[in-house]
Amino acid sequence: MGILNSISTPADLKALKDEDLEVLAEEIRTFLVDKVAATGGHLGPNLGVVELSIGLHRVFDSPADPIIFDTSHQSYVHKILTGRAGDFDTLRQKDGLSGYTSRAESEHDWTESSHASAALSYADGLSKAMQLNGDSEHSVVAVVGDGALTGGMCWEALNNIAAGKDRNVVVIVNDNGRSYSPTIGGFAENLAELRMEPFYDRVMEKGKTSLKSMGWVGERTFEALHAFKEGVKSTVIPTEMFPELGMKYVGPVNGHNLKAVENALKYAHDYEGPIIVHMVTEKGRGYAPAEQDLDELMHSTGIMDPVTGEPKSVSKPGWTAVFSDELTKIGGQNEDVIAITAAMAGPTGLAKFAANYPNRFFDVGIAEQHALTSAAGLALGGKHPVVAIYSTFLNRAFDQLLMDVGLLHLPVTIVLDRSGVTGSDGASHNGVWDLALTSIVPGIRVAAPRDEITLRELLNEAVGIDDGPTVIRFPKGELPTPVEALQTFEDGVDLIGYIDAADQSETEDSAPSVLIVAVGERASIALKVAERIAARGVNVTVVDPRWVIPIPQSLVALADDHDLVVTIEDGVIHGGVGSLLSDALNAAEIDTPRRQVAVPQKYLDHASRNEVLADHSLDLDAVEASINGWMDNLFGE
Amino acid sequence: MGILNSISTPADLKALKDEDLEVLAEEIRTFLVDKVAATGGHLGPNLGVVELSIGLHRVFDSPADPIIFDTSHQSYVHKILTGRAGDFDTLRQKDGLSGYTSRAESEHDWTESSHASAALSYADGLSKAMQLNGDSEHSVVAVVGDGALTGGMCWEALNNIAAGKDRNVVVIVNDNGRSYSPTIGGFAENLAELRMEPFYDRVMEKGKTSLKSMGWVGERTFEALHAFKEGVKSTVIPTEMFPELGMKYVGPVNGHNLKAVENALKYAHDYEGPIIVHMVTEKGRGYAPAEQDLDELMHSTGIMDPVTGEPKSVSKPGWTAVFSDELTKIGGQNEDVIAITAAMAGPTGLAKFAANYPNRFFDVGIAEQHALTSAAGLALGGKHPVVAIYSTFLNRAFDQLLMDVGLLHLPVTIVLDRSGVTGSDGASHNGVWDLALTSIVPGIRVAAPRDEITLRELLNEAVGIDDGPTVIRFPKGELPTPVEALQTFEDGVDLIGYIDAADQSETEDSAPSVLIVAVGERASIALKVAERIAARGVNVTVVDPRWVIPIPQSLVALADDHDLVVTIEDGVIHGGVGSLLSDALNAAEIDTPRRQVAVPQKYLDHASRNEVLADHSLDLDAVEASINGWMDNLFGE
Repeated sequence: MGILNSISTPADLKALKDEDLEVLAEEIRTFLVDKVAATGGHLGPNLGVVELSIGLHRVFDSPADPIIFDTSHQSYVHKILTGRAGDFDTLRQKDGLSGYTSRAESEHDWTESSHASAALSYADGLSKAMQLNGDSEHSVVAVVGDGALTGGMCWEALNNIAAGKDRNVVVIVNDNGRSYSPTIGGFAENLAELRMEPFYDRVMEKGKTSLKSMGWVGERTFEALHAFKEGVKSTVIPTEMFPELGMKYVGPVNGHNLKAVENALKYAHDYEGPIIVHMVTEKGRGYAPAEQDLDELMHSTGIMDPVTGEPKSVSKPGWTAVFSDELTKIGGQNEDVIAITAAMAGPTGLAKFAANYPNRFFDVGIAEQHALTSAAGLALGGKHPVVAIYSTFLNRAFDQLLMDVGLLHLPVTIVLDRSGVTGSDGASHNGVWDLALTSIVPGIRVAAPRDEITLRELLNEAVGIDDGPTVIRFPKGELPTPVEALQTFEDGVDLIGYIDAADQSETEDSAPSVLIVAVGERASIALKVAERIAARGVNVTVVDPRWVIPIPQSLVALADDHDLVVTIEDGVIHGGVGSLLSDALNAAEIDTPRRQVAVPQKYLDHASRNEVLADHSLDLDAVEASINGWMDNLFGE
Repeated sequence: MGILNSISTPADLKALKDEDLEVLAEEIRTFLVDKVAATGGHLGPNLGVVELSIGLHRVFDSPADPIIFDTSHQSYVHKILTGRAGDFDTLRQKDGLSGYTSRAESEHDWTESSHASAALSYADGLSKAMQLNGDSEHSVVAVVGDGALTGGMCWEALNNIAAGKDRNVVVIVNDNGRSYSPTIGGFAENLAELRMEPFYDRVMEKGKTSLKSMGWVGERTFEALHAFKEGVKSTVIPTEMFPELGMKYVGPVNGHNLKAVENALKYAHDYEGPIIVHMVTEKGRGYAPAEQDLDELMHSTGIMDPVTGEPKSVSKPGWTAVFSDELTKIGGQNEDVIAITAAMAGPTGLAKFAANYPNRFFDVGIAEQHALTSAAGLALGGKHPVVAIYSTFLNRAFDQLLMDVGLLHLPVTIVLDRSGVTGSDGASHNGVWDLALTSIVPGIRVAAPRDEITLRELLNEAVGIDDGPTVIRFPKGELPTPVEALQTFEDGVDLIGYIDAADQSETEDSAPSVLIVAVGERASIALKVAERIAARGVNVTVVDPRWVIPIPQSLVALADDHDLVVTIEDGVIHGGVGSLLSDALNAAEIDTPRRQVAVPQKYLDHASRNEVLADHSLDLDAVEASINGWMDNLFGE
């Protein structure tokens, strides 16, 4: 690590000789594998951008030339080259290095979100500001994956970037042909380079086989590749391959040839006006387990053996696996059920459905808006689509849910994985918004299963509802111990705990009574806290509404019969279930005091899920303390 | 109207002879002008699609071949041809004909929302369903404006439509070169037709002048037009002009030549696979005041003189005009203020700012996502962008507000016109979602001015806030009479009414007290209702928080001092100000009863604004009755 250790700023990198750069690239790859194996993190994408990141920091003058990553899970090498190599032991850990760019970490980081397809819009705005500030010397550089180009935001941005003929925006398409899974994306290369390498044939082969699922972005690039074959001789030649963009285009460039990368970037640096640089890279480059990683296990990995790439601890089957299994069963029973993913068949568990019913499975690209509205179209045609996405990405399709699905009362089921607090991925991956967001939609029904059994049941119920949208939300991680219902009310609310103070202590029948409403997997913590507070001599009732939106009527009646209502949920407080129940009680003119245990209205720093919960008073001890405090003030100590 | 009167179904239309069709087109234009002049509505767009709509219903077999309009304000001719001509006297009126397609009206209508760029996604989904249903005979037809193509959703959809090689999706680009304003769009024509007409030169001239603002969609089409000039001889020739889409392309077609339109549509009908038909039309065609309508007053018009196009009643200056004026003033004082529109410079009032500071004004196309994130980029570059959009369209950019602006605490001001109940445009134009939606965003500050003076003040305050996003929301229509503050609390909350029961009646000092919290223009109704209920012998305090999100602390303290808190707002109940105040009181352990006057969680049918308010118990009498009922139950009659 001799050379790597000598780099603490981009200036150190600029001083290196050519022969040192190759060594540096090797050292960085070794460093990445070692560090990510120990902490978990995004490995494949970063192994693919080693040479690109070196080139960027040699050619451009960051931060005066802002470099924006889309998404910034591909910023590890950038972090290493900007003085943060020493922090990698703390990657994605509490108070440690973020898994994405972070403005608090470095002046070289400009953005923070992990949602795809946004970088070009940032770049467009930033370049407008620089122009207004009279800065015509510097460029804004945006590094965007081929997968992100399937998101509509990119095209909105390109339409504006291309119109700014006198603004220096450098769009680098990091084209590895797979984003999360081998989906939509183009393949191309500096052929003169490629012809020397067996890599070329592999890339071309991949190109052919995945063309069908790629759509026109892929095809265009593939055709362009063939056209290019005839024209290009030995090195990068600027050309006008995408004249319809009205933008200068350079490429395709072998993204693993340091010289080719640097030459192309230099050309882009000196060019006046917007320009696209098309880099072809290989995800996982230089690390066999990641290069051969067709299942994309190395896109984002847990702690693993750095030599074999084998995970060090096998996690128990979680929520996703149960959903995957149950939806596949349902698909076998009901031919009208369709599955839709936005480029995440593997992570959402839809791959199994896809393998069994390929005709009824659609990967639409990183295009949540289209996922929802094409689902609406399928529903208009008599189908029952199930759109499976991570909770946080539903934010991208709110208008489509409200206006294209909800307004027409269409039977679309949205399955939200990674709801609630997710933890180590940080602020933009937490699924804490979905209850507040979906509760806005008139007529929607939202279910929060508490365990494996209720997940299976609720998914079946949702697919059977044909007069409006339904949502099933569940968290990241392992399944909790099942919680049985003592009784189920007519409207489907489960009574899961009832503790009579008289049985517990010498308190009289007039003991105060507390109703605890637990959302989803919060059921287990609710039961534990109920036991603890009952010991103080109160009657405690614990219910799991299962369908939490709209508020079931039995909750209103129960609230009227208790002296305090406590809601426990893992979403933000405003607009969540506690808030909705409060609205429902106000409407019913029931003034029982209510208290809400929920995630505060904040962006949550990265840390483990349990650490985040504890930091925001959502762990068992903290919830007990909160409820005790409320009872003290209401009923006396 | 001899021929028009004979048409009650598409079958009648199919039976007509060619010579009758020209007459029919003329009759439809006369009908449209007469009817829309009497009721108000979308005139220009519908005059432009007369021949196109006739052709669609002659060639395709609606509803078995679904026809989807994007947006469906261009569906009037379609409505006339599908048996609804007789209903046009009730256009956009309560219980009358919708201004958009409506499934309740006709089996020929498939969708309902008025938000642009969604039709292609519907079409993609519907065609998938039809294929799964074994229907390979029929096509799905989507009619999309050139303006809508600047929205990213269209590209997400095209990417998927193009990949469905064996699905019959007909994408008709209705290219009139202007959507709401002469912005982004291509121009082309069947040149053989055009060369005969002076229209051609006009179109070409427009093309040249607006190229700069058009971006690459425009440029591509413009270049294609020139290329095409050489090749095309006399009639429509299918070609491969957009090979990068991987889709068959037909055009450009003169959208006002019935024969050319029908030929192109027949070709598309018979073609197996996805196909684009590029129709060039003229907005306002055949009606001089609309053809010459550079200010787009005829895009959507009020009641007017059908001969001259002059409005019959001049409306007083409204909220938009005040915003327009004040922002232009601010722009003169602060060079860092930037204005951004999503293709609606005129309707949002930004045209004046644009005329004064053209370098600091950006029209990004119908691209709300990009509007927000490019604003974030401008803010990163030290600017203070003001994004002016209609409230309902903010729904398209929620993720961008939350993750690209809010997470980075960037100083972006969003000005929401048409907040609250808008009325005649129907369900998808109401701005009743913004309070619930924005309240989710951590750190955001939302202001609701109550009159002209507070709008000016709050806009200035917002532009002065540099540590996070701000929102200013105001309704459609005329300005209310100004309401003066009796007192302003430290946190900016205005006391606007205080009525001591002791002064009003013989009631003792122990009279119950009611706190009314009024949001924005609801201040005036709140004051009126306060007077009425005070007469019953209660003490009433009325406050306007001005900044309604986050809840000001003084509201919490005031709530503690009163016996009942009533919130009055014009947004949906869940997640609105009443809901947020309830959350705040729960958190402060204050259990004063609260009641919420708000819009129910429903999609609102079209009707006048006052009719909608009355229908949902939001008018003065209904609010009084609600509050009286609540007081009776709490304090006894």
